[in-house]
Amino acid sequence: MSKARYVAGLRAVEVLLSRSAAKIVKLYAEYQTANPRVEAIIAQANSRGIEIQSANRARLKQISGEARHQGVVAEIERESILDEAGLRTLVENRLTADESKPLLLLVLDGIQDPQNLGACLRSADAAGADAVIVRRHGAAGLGATVSKVAAGAAESVPFASVNNLGKVLKWLKEYGVKVVGTSDTGEKTIYDIDFSGHLVLVMGEEHTGLGERVAGLCDELASLPMRGTVPSLNVSVATGICLYEALRQRS
Amino acid sequence: MSKARYVAGLRAVEVLLSRSAAKIVKLYAEYQTANPRVEAIIAQANSRGIEIQSANRARLKQISGEARHQGVVAEIERESILDEAGLRTLVENRLTADESKPLLLLVLDGIQDPQNLGACLRSADAAGADAVIVRRHGAAGLGATVSKVAAGAAESVPFASVNNLGKVLKWLKEYGVKVVGTSDTGEKTIYDIDFSGHLVLVMGEEHTGLGERVAGLCDELASLPMRGTVPSLNVSVATGICLYEALRQRS
Repeated sequence: MSKARYVAGLRAVEVLLSRSAAKIVKLYAEYQTANPRVEAIIAQANSRGIEIQSANRARLKQISGEARHQGVVAEIERESILDEAGLRTLVENRLTADESKPLLLLVLDGIQDPQNLGACLRSADAAGADAVIVRRHGAAGLGATVSKVAAGAAESVPFASVNNLGKVLKWLKEYGVKVVGTSDTGEKTIYDIDFSGHLVLVMGEEHTGLGERVAGLCDELASLPMRGTVPSLNVSVATGICLYEALRQRS
Repeated sequence: MSKARYVAGLRAVEVLLSRSAAKIVKLYAEYQTANPRVEAIIAQANSRGIEIQSANRARLKQISGEARHQGVVAEIERESILDEAGLRTLVENRLTADESKPLLLLVLDGIQDPQNLGACLRSADAAGADAVIVRRHGAAGLGATVSKVAAGAAESVPFASVNNLGKVLKWLKEYGVKVVGTSDTGEKTIYDIDFSGHLVLVMGEEHTGLGERVAGLCDELASLPMRGTVPSLNVSVATGICLYEALRQRS
């Protein structure tokens, strides 16, 4: 029973239910509770045809481990990794369902280290990103290390692996999504860029940064201020900072 | 010749020279340059009695490796790890030298993983922190992994290891330093807290978070918004986000 296949807690399960792509196999819930949020979750799961199993506190604790369950735990199945067509459907569905809520996508252009990929997935999930997109070739794939570091996010945040990143960025722009790449050559810092609309944030590879072709497709290049002696940040830290700046501007 | 013992580039060397605690063994500089910043660096190094060696571009590139040297490379020696008294001297000197520039200290309360400690040092350096403080017992120490992950910051950012973290936080408060701990129980988010003055940011351990005693000494507890299914971020990512929010508010 892998811990990473369970998502616990009110807010986390609500987020899962709001993601059309997430596949919930079963919902464990404390029926006796008088909490209206638990009741709403049960009602929503019912309407989606998800199997619901009544469970007491001891059972929920056993399933969720150290995570706070607050009366609900969802068992999830990793949706199949999306290809370009699947990603396009996700974006269209998301924009149709709620155009007013700005889209947030994260592109990782060639991250090599599974630890970094895992930490990026975790941050993307935490910041409420709609999907993470990677290049199919020359990058880390999803594996056990990624899952472990991602603390469950590898199973919950939609993940797309595409052959041609440039093509994806081009059609995303046609949907009105702003493409912002991060680069130490960016003249503006992330604090001077408007992240409030539909956004795809593009992070480069650990050592070489953003590729030239991808950088050329960006609407803006953003840098992070560097006030010390190191020339750059760890890529997963930089990704977290950029995602949370987007979150801050949207709050 | 370990790469981590060299700091390359104008801004990085300027920062080093501004840190009273940094021990620069030798400065390699391109004398032929007409760059006034290089000239200012040479003058400052001269006045501090630092040995200066003329070097051409090829030699500088050989020393600095992949880092952009821009005509200057400093060879540094890890200052001895500071104890509580050394830290107090550093804080006093720093406040005496420039009280108007707000102090930024990072406390890591029991980080276990050397990868995380290395990434935190790198972020602390990048955000312009004045020092990083750890508990002597029950935490990761500086080692080869830390140095590698820190990308040079392990040698350049002042590092203090103290027996009694609570005592240190108490006297820091007496100097007018605000103590902000991060905790998922914090009622305010980091975006609602004023980080503009003298600040010590306290990050908890990877799994259990901030200890009760240390949390009790904090002036404020700050949380990070969580918009997804994961209950928390990787500690080095969370540290980077908090440090950069402080940097943003001070800019």
